[in-house]
Amino acid sequence: MKNVRYSTILSNVGTCCDRYLSSGYSDPFTTDQMFDRAAGIENITGVELVANWHISNDNIEQIKENLDRTGLKLVSIIPDHFGQKKWGKGAFTSKNPSIRREAVSHTIEMMDIAAGLGCDLVSLWPGQDGYDYYFQADYIEEHGWFEEGVKECCRHRNDVRVAVEYKIKEPRNRSYPSNIGSTLLMVKEINEINCGVTIDYGHAMVAYENVAESVAILKKYGDKLFHVHMNDNYGYWDDDMMVGSVNMVSYIEFLYWLKTTDYKGWISMDQYPYREDGQKAVNESVKWLSALNEVVDRMDMKEVKNIIKAGDATESSKMLRKYIFPNT
Amino acid sequence: MKNVRYSTILSNVGTCCDRYLSSGYSDPFTTDQMFDRAAGIENITGVELVANWHISNDNIEQIKENLDRTGLKLVSIIPDHFGQKKWGKGAFTSKNPSIRREAVSHTIEMMDIAAGLGCDLVSLWPGQDGYDYYFQADYIEEHGWFEEGVKECCRHRNDVRVAVEYKIKEPRNRSYPSNIGSTLLMVKEINEINCGVTIDYGHAMVAYENVAESVAILKKYGDKLFHVHMNDNYGYWDDDMMVGSVNMVSYIEFLYWLKTTDYKGWISMDQYPYREDGQKAVNESVKWLSALNEVVDRMDMKEVKNIIKAGDATESSKMLRKYIFPNT
Amino acid sequence: MKNVRYSTILSNVGTCCDRYLSSGYSDPFTTDQMFDRAAGIENITGVELVANWHISNDNIEQIKENLDRTGLKLVSIIPDHFGQKKWGKGAFTSKNPSIRREAVSHTIEMMDIAAGLGCDLVSLWPGQDGYDYYFQADYIEEHGWFEEGVKECCRHRNDVRVAVEYKIKEPRNRSYPSNIGSTLLMVKEINEINCGVTIDYGHAMVAYENVAESVAILKKYGDKLFHVHMNDNYGYWDDDMMVGSVNMVSYIEFLYWLKTTDYKGWISMDQYPYREDGQKAVNESVKWLSALNEVVDRMDMKEVKNIIKAGDATESSKMLRKYIFPNT
Amino acid sequence: MKNVRYSTILSNVGTCCDRYLSSGYSDPFTTDQMFDRAAGIENITGVELVANWHISNDNIEQIKENLDRTGLKLVSIIPDHFGQKKWGKGAFTSKNPSIRREAVSHTIEMMDIAAGLGCDLVSLWPGQDGYDYYFQADYIEEHGWFEEGVKECCRHRNDVRVAVEYKIKEPRNRSYPSNIGSTLLMVKEINEINCGVTIDYGHAMVAYENVAESVAILKKYGDKLFHVHMNDNYGYWDDDMMVGSVNMVSYIEFLYWLKTTDYKGWISMDQYPYREDGQKAVNESVKWLSALNEVVDRMDMKEVKNIIKAGDATESSKMLRKYIFPNT
Repeated sequence: MKNVRYSTILSNVGTCCDRYLSSGYSDPFTTDQMFDRAAGIENITGVELVANWHISNDNIEQIKENLDRTGLKLVSIIPDHFGQKKWGKGAFTSKNPSIRREAVSHTIEMMDIAAGLGCDLVSLWPGQDGYDYYFQADYIEEHGWFEEGVKECCRHRNDVRVAVEYKIKEPRNRSYPSNIGSTLLMVKEINEINCGVTIDYGHAMVAYENVAESVAILKKYGDKLFHVHMNDNYGYWDDDMMVGSVNMVSYIEFLYWLKTTDYKGWISMDQYPYREDGQKAVNESVKWLSALNEVVDRMDMKEVKNIIKAGDATESSKMLRKYIFPNT
Repeated sequence: MKNVRYSTILSNVGTCCDRYLSSGYSDPFTTDQMFDRAAGIENITGVELVANWHISNDNIEQIKENLDRTGLKLVSIIPDHFGQKKWGKGAFTSKNPSIRREAVSHTIEMMDIAAGLGCDLVSLWPGQDGYDYYFQADYIEEHGWFEEGVKECCRHRNDVRVAVEYKIKEPRNRSYPSNIGSTLLMVKEINEINCGVTIDYGHAMVAYENVAESVAILKKYGDKLFHVHMNDNYGYWDDDMMVGSVNMVSYIEFLYWLKTTDYKGWISMDQYPYREDGQKAVNESVKWLSALNEVVDRMDMKEVKNIIKAGDATESSKMLRKYIFPNT
Repeated sequence: MKNVRYSTILSNVGTCCDRYLSSGYSDPFTTDQMFDRAAGIENITGVELVANWHISNDNIEQIKENLDRTGLKLVSIIPDHFGQKKWGKGAFTSKNPSIRREAVSHTIEMMDIAAGLGCDLVSLWPGQDGYDYYFQADYIEEHGWFEEGVKECCRHRNDVRVAVEYKIKEPRNRSYPSNIGSTLLMVKEINEINCGVTIDYGHAMVAYENVAESVAILKKYGDKLFHVHMNDNYGYWDDDMMVGSVNMVSYIEFLYWLKTTDYKGWISMDQYPYREDGQKAVNESVKWLSALNEVVDRMDMKEVKNIIKAGDATESSKMLRKYIFPNT
Repeated sequence: MKNVRYSTILSNVGTCCDRYLSSGYSDPFTTDQMFDRAAGIENITGVELVANWHISNDNIEQIKENLDRTGLKLVSIIPDHFGQKKWGKGAFTSKNPSIRREAVSHTIEMMDIAAGLGCDLVSLWPGQDGYDYYFQADYIEEHGWFEEGVKECCRHRNDVRVAVEYKIKEPRNRSYPSNIGSTLLMVKEINEINCGVTIDYGHAMVAYENVAESVAILKKYGDKLFHVHMNDNYGYWDDDMMVGSVNMVSYIEFLYWLKTTDYKGWISMDQYPYREDGQKAVNESVKWLSALNEVVDRMDMKEVKNIIKAGDATESSKMLRKYIFPNT
């Protein structure tokens, strides 16, 4: 892919906590510091902001100033549907109708803020929408609520795209937009031109997806890939590690399919460097992705296509080997 | 559920093999013997047949005679898209167009045989449709082939329903109809009234589905649950164990949702009793399901609905406890 | 098991947080309130305390008072090797030798406090001892450090037992005492009479252990089961759910093996009721365990032994069915 | 590693079957043909034979002739404890004492045959030793039987080493030598100098092991790594794919630890190329391993050691990136 653009979620260059060390694994950074840290990473030219963590109605000027100062482009806003007590039992699918209303109104507010900052994307991560136990949810009703809520957001303004990011679990034991199939099913039911999908690489892997196939499926059913979040993991949990630390070949196929489906969006980092310096961790991911993209750029696209069409895995293996280790 | 009807796949009362012991864990049974063994299980009143393993154009009379003799109802035929060398690299999605044609023509043939035997269902298990390695498949093209092929089968005759059974892997490392979402997406694209879904309990669990939710989703998006296959596993692989040997509460919620969505089909056993007597193993599953169905029948449906609507997991837990262990 | 004694970790009746909602899913409770809440649960007669979260050199009097007031027995202290920044990259296996020293000295301090409060057990959960990435640790050296550190603690005083609680991952992507085998290997290398193992039910399940087998193995290799932590999960992650919410039969076998190996310790709850009332959640777990223990008490031990010796799974299934659903 | 020697299990260049296609995915090869195919792979200089599948008392001359003709070294014999009906419910841990005797006598026979063919290793894969269901096994007794049986084999003659290959499941749902910890525990209990461990890369990964760490642990606890079997998988199941098709970095760390622990054994391929030509599939694995070994050979061992000791994952990432993609 030529002209690939890399961005990062702002908190990736901040500090991380978990349920055992809720005060954080390192000292916090201010928003201004995080902007500087993000801007200091080679090839990072955009930033994603999480509502309440980074942006709200109260600090728009500060954000504008940071964007101006650093020259970073605002790539998306991630509304907050997961980080406050009120969302604990669901946002779009809360059993409390006033919380459901709030999920919509907060999203709409963030769409307006995004538009005001020259950004045309909100990426919804409905992490609390789902359930934990058997006999705890009316699945039909709650899937319906999710679709209604997101549809209302989409209709608010069509110059801002609304991308739904799926995840099979965490923080709920079972989430509603759980994998590429269940999410696309809802996106098709919502049936708005500005409604699409954000693929988080690690989320997809935990759902045992081959992310390249997920990219292809989104192309097939309506060109619905709006955004991607990058990280790596060991396959069982959203470890949010640096790109390339576990997997490699799967990224190459993913990047190949981004190229062949003509993806034009950003490639954004979404990591949790609990025990690492976040700036260095994002830098590593971008450097790995650049190296892997360079492999894809070296590929003879016709040869690759023929190998795919033939389907002989020993030929696929040989081709990959030659591109990664040319001397073998 | 009143009037619940139990059936079994015929080979469940036969012998099993695996890749290390391909000659089988026990001596084989003849088709006639398997019919007698199935009929000898209390509450089993129907049977499913696998094409080529049990039924083909060459033995229809023998099958008719067995059905008559035992009084078993033919519940479905499972066409063979997985058990011969020619299907090894795919049936509906084989890269060889003549194999794809054969996948359709074989299905159509089985639809006709089913109809001739008074059966209105074929359950497709496209186990070889998928891929194993990265860079081995054109996902867009192959999803399209699958939809085209199944659509053509559906259009052959509308008095036989065509149910697609999904599985996330095995025998391919990655299958196309992989989970409830990806399958329903294809079923909607196929868009034929007689096209629906078979849920295999164990397959759904390996895809980290809550099977009750999958039942609900099929209700929501077009009442597409046509058939169910029952077994149990440890969650990571299609172990095809007896029902109730690992899970219990999840079955209760599943049966509750079958009842509440007014499922009218059969509940069919689909197990691999490698080291057990198959007849006893099917008997155990039916007995467990009967006991669990009896729990559901004892439930105060309004109370359950209220608990679901409230969503307090400690109340769900208490309710389940009271129904299973009334004295606690 | 007659005379079974149930306890709970104090924070189980408090509030929970995770990495997205670090301020907690509900308002916090004071230590005094948590003691009252624990004591208010039927059949809970003991409590476990986490160092720093609940107990330290500074509040021993307050704890003593709470124990006296509520009549709860102090079952164990869990030293803090996971909840402060200094432990972020390891406690017993920190690459910083002074942190390793501190892991030992803190443990020793907690052993003394425990003894002073009439408690003979500390349960070590070395959650930060492990690593996240490839090429990040010298496994030989770090296993050695772990053994040396724990051995030194054990030698401090032999009237307090030191139990190592294993977990395959979280918060590190890979932990050192990871499963029953790796832990017992280290316990044998440590080779101190007061060194043993705490089984956390959910941790064992995520390591794909059958917990009953783990109990048996600890019996076989030196009677090393010192303590158990109870919770439930879906098999892939330490969901820390209420007992009985997912699994049931596995608990029965576990309790059977506790009985048959003559386990005399406490059965302690260790849950994370993020969205539930913790008191009700612990109450449910105890009630489920009581019901399941009642099943074990009803068992004809000789019959069960014979069924185990015969190894026919259909007979095991039938037996369990009869004990759970006597009318089937 | 200089002087690394590659071998293959003979059936890797044959045909494969599974439970759905038990007659095999391709036409079979004769033993002679398989020897020629193995010998035709660049850098393959040794072969492993499976008892009964390839070698028995009846065809020793034929094997000798094949070894002579092809110049392949016999690396190990894998006794048959899994491929006949009699082993279906266990070999060393069968509840039938005469089967247990046979497991020992067959192993001893294979040790003698191995020695007669100039080979000093048998690699035991007790695939049927374990259980499937709860309440189906007396774990204490059966672990004991396993240790007794293997000990007796070891004592038969000390010029043949006996390596135990672990696997967490398949064909049993739960196996006894399940992971590195449980296996080493038994090996230490057996306590014979010629008793050690075979690591199968894929088996270890399905047990969520970092295989490099497993190598290190075997070094620490008695230098017990006797043999390795290579393949790749997606992490959840023993897919037995070509090396390098999914993972890459993990192999580099593994090869680094083989080097740093001074492993002197063979690196043997153990794959199931269901739908590939086995010869090409083994060739790919060897070529990938050669490329990855070349990376390790380029490494500055002191630099790597320092990075490991420092434990900063961003430095590990950078180092790996530089070695794989020198131009980034």
